[in-house]
Amino acid sequence: MNAEIIAVGSELLTPHRSDTNSLFLTEHLNRLGVDVVYKTIVGDDRSRLTETISLALSRSNVILTIGGLGPTEDDLTRECAAAALGRPLHRDDAIVESIAARFRARGLRMPEINLRQGMVIEGAVVLPNPKGTAPGQWIEDRGKILILFPGPPRELKPMFESVVLARLREKVPPAAIRVRVLRLTGLTESAAEELAAPLYTRYSNPVTTILTAPGEIQLHLKAFGNDEAEAQARVDDLSPQLEAVLAEHIFSTDGASLEEVAGRGLLARRATVAVAESCTGGLLAQRITSVPGSSEYFLGGVVCYSNAWKSDWLEVSQENIERHGAVSPEVARALAEGIRRKACATLGVGITGIAGPTGDTPAKPVGLVYVALAAPDGTQVREQHYFGEREMVRWQATQTALDMLRRWLTGAQRSS
Amino acid sequence: MNAEIIAVGSELLTPHRSDTNSLFLTEHLNRLGVDVVYKTIVGDDRSRLTETISLALSRSNVILTIGGLGPTEDDLTRECAAAALGRPLHRDDAIVESIAARFRARGLRMPEINLRQGMVIEGAVVLPNPKGTAPGQWIEDRGKILILFPGPPRELKPMFESVVLARLREKVPPAAIRVRVLRLTGLTESAAEELAAPLYTRYSNPVTTILTAPGEIQLHLKAFGNDEAEAQARVDDLSPQLEAVLAEHIFSTDGASLEEVAGRGLLARRATVAVAESCTGGLLAQRITSVPGSSEYFLGGVVCYSNAWKSDWLEVSQENIERHGAVSPEVARALAEGIRRKACATLGVGITGIAGPTGDTPAKPVGLVYVALAAPDGTQVREQHYFGEREMVRWQATQTALDMLRRWLTGAQRSS
Repeated sequence: MNAEIIAVGSELLTPHRSDTNSLFLTEHLNRLGVDVVYKTIVGDDRSRLTETISLALSRSNVILTIGGLGPTEDDLTRECAAAALGRPLHRDDAIVESIAARFRARGLRMPEINLRQGMVIEGAVVLPNPKGTAPGQWIEDRGKILILFPGPPRELKPMFESVVLARLREKVPPAAIRVRVLRLTGLTESAAEELAAPLYTRYSNPVTTILTAPGEIQLHLKAFGNDEAEAQARVDDLSPQLEAVLAEHIFSTDGASLEEVAGRGLLARRATVAVAESCTGGLLAQRITSVPGSSEYFLGGVVCYSNAWKSDWLEVSQENIERHGAVSPEVARALAEGIRRKACATLGVGITGIAGPTGDTPAKPVGLVYVALAAPDGTQVREQHYFGEREMVRWQATQTALDMLRRWLTGAQRSS
Repeated sequence: MNAEIIAVGSELLTPHRSDTNSLFLTEHLNRLGVDVVYKTIVGDDRSRLTETISLALSRSNVILTIGGLGPTEDDLTRECAAAALGRPLHRDDAIVESIAARFRARGLRMPEINLRQGMVIEGAVVLPNPKGTAPGQWIEDRGKILILFPGPPRELKPMFESVVLARLREKVPPAAIRVRVLRLTGLTESAAEELAAPLYTRYSNPVTTILTAPGEIQLHLKAFGNDEAEAQARVDDLSPQLEAVLAEHIFSTDGASLEEVAGRGLLARRATVAVAESCTGGLLAQRITSVPGSSEYFLGGVVCYSNAWKSDWLEVSQENIERHGAVSPEVARALAEGIRRKACATLGVGITGIAGPTGDTPAKPVGLVYVALAAPDGTQVREQHYFGEREMVRWQATQTALDMLRRWLTGAQRSS
């Protein structure tokens, strides 16, 4: 069974707003085993909205519209849905009375324009809206289900959870979708594809998709089944094969971020970490501390932008900086070892590099970053050449640092 | 003239990803006077994608597709666009060679699957992609323009700006939309509305919209004209009136972020800043250093998560911490003054608070944050109570800190 979401509102076609309700609806629909196959965003335009709803009714099983149920002239979803269905609208006095009561409760008289919100499509079930004036509507038509939701998330969400979910459960054939996401670092997209494709292309269920993010590759496995156990079994059939070939490049299979995984590793090892950052400017500390509970293992960080800070705060010798330059493996090592020593941490991370757009030289181009990890068993330094602009370079440098942490923590676990 | 955007990728139909490229494209299309009338999100499905492109070609003037140009089996946009147009695909050896050269530059051999990226629709103009392997394509067909973009923003944006914008300008009839964004801090949405509405509601052109972001209010003024000068004149008529009533709460009218504005102020005053962060965990340093050239005024930062760090690194007295607690105006003040003194900076910022979800007490709830600014003329401390979860609290705390910096810098400018 599939679904299609239509978000209505000219403001959603500006550069400034994007629809977020559809993510919430998608999550709940997927849990019911309903696949979302289209999302359309259309403005407050009578003919375009009517055509969009008509098209959706012709090609999808469940159609959910969001927005356009307000009281103004721009709010056209009721009328356009009625037109697309070829059904009339009637005024529902009970709705009008409940809207009027909301106004009375605030000592106000209901404006005339709110009468529009009392118009109901013939045959529709009215979905109460305890958080606002616009009720939703549920219409079944020739095997299709059309549901009209108000736009504000704080009205849509409770309406979905309190009424729509139970109704959908009755209508949707028992089916389920299970998704597993394998998140990887240290491989290019093509390398991951070459390893994974021979395995996943043998399966049409799960469907596997490869996605890239800066410093990360994701494999999404989406399995369909008649119930959750069946869908899960299909995921559990393919996933271990992929996990075997992608091996230590996989950092999570449960959605956890790299900073969460590194944090779990630190907790499990009862280890602590402190960081000394130059070009990443605090981004590594910020990512580590974005995880609730990180105060258990994160001791602190120093953002040493100037060379004076590097020597005054972290005892990186002036001679070291002068001989090798601030962007050098030697200084990265000294930063990692300096912060580890001064903070009395199990692990110290040092990062120095050229984030750009300026500060580069022919020998040290934008994107050159040294990342060092000082550990009880010694210090390792990686030289990286990242693509992209300032924020991309900074992000990737923190990916490398977190991945070095993760690999050290899991490697140590293996050998113990 | 109107346009329609099609974002391609099954991941955009999951609860985890949303399309942001379309906001960038919409902004540029609007500036050219082109209205975006539909956005459609469709998965990596051959028949659905082909139908979506066919429909768009039948109803809109300019169609922009995003994504689906990668090297894998899932990347179907080239083939589906060719099918929708009824044109064949040919391999372009020059593209293949440039992709192979990218791999060689990194010491790698081009995988076989990347040959797919060399396939070009008959009659298409190839749009070079200096940031990635997938070139874009521009096809004109029976009065319509179809443009295929790669999905990663760092590839799409330069491709649009360097090639597509100039081509579109030639094709689009002269009309213009000008937008000015007034960005504010320190006012609630309703307070901003009360000040601004009596002015902007008198104008139907520009259209003014008020939007909220965490710790920020934005007024968007959008004016239409037959040419840029006319649209600009309409903006210039209303905007100064709003700027007069919103006064010092406005931090930028040219799109600049709060960290950019604070940076400009520091440069103008030849002042320097150093920061000591507890609950924000490096986010303030990271925001300040996200601005290119920030090494001119940012000396460094300390993320002092533990009390030991606060006293060892910044000379915050143990007695101070024990008597008032780590989250207190006294400790915020000591952090700001300590980092200012130790870094020999013009200005020092100290932040301490409860970001949540744990660590709160009845007297010190989640969202309580103290932000201090130590300056040559004394130290000010603000007590803030923020709504929202961990990341929201952290973000808002850095908004407050940057705004205190900005206001100190501009206040000083006024009095000099």
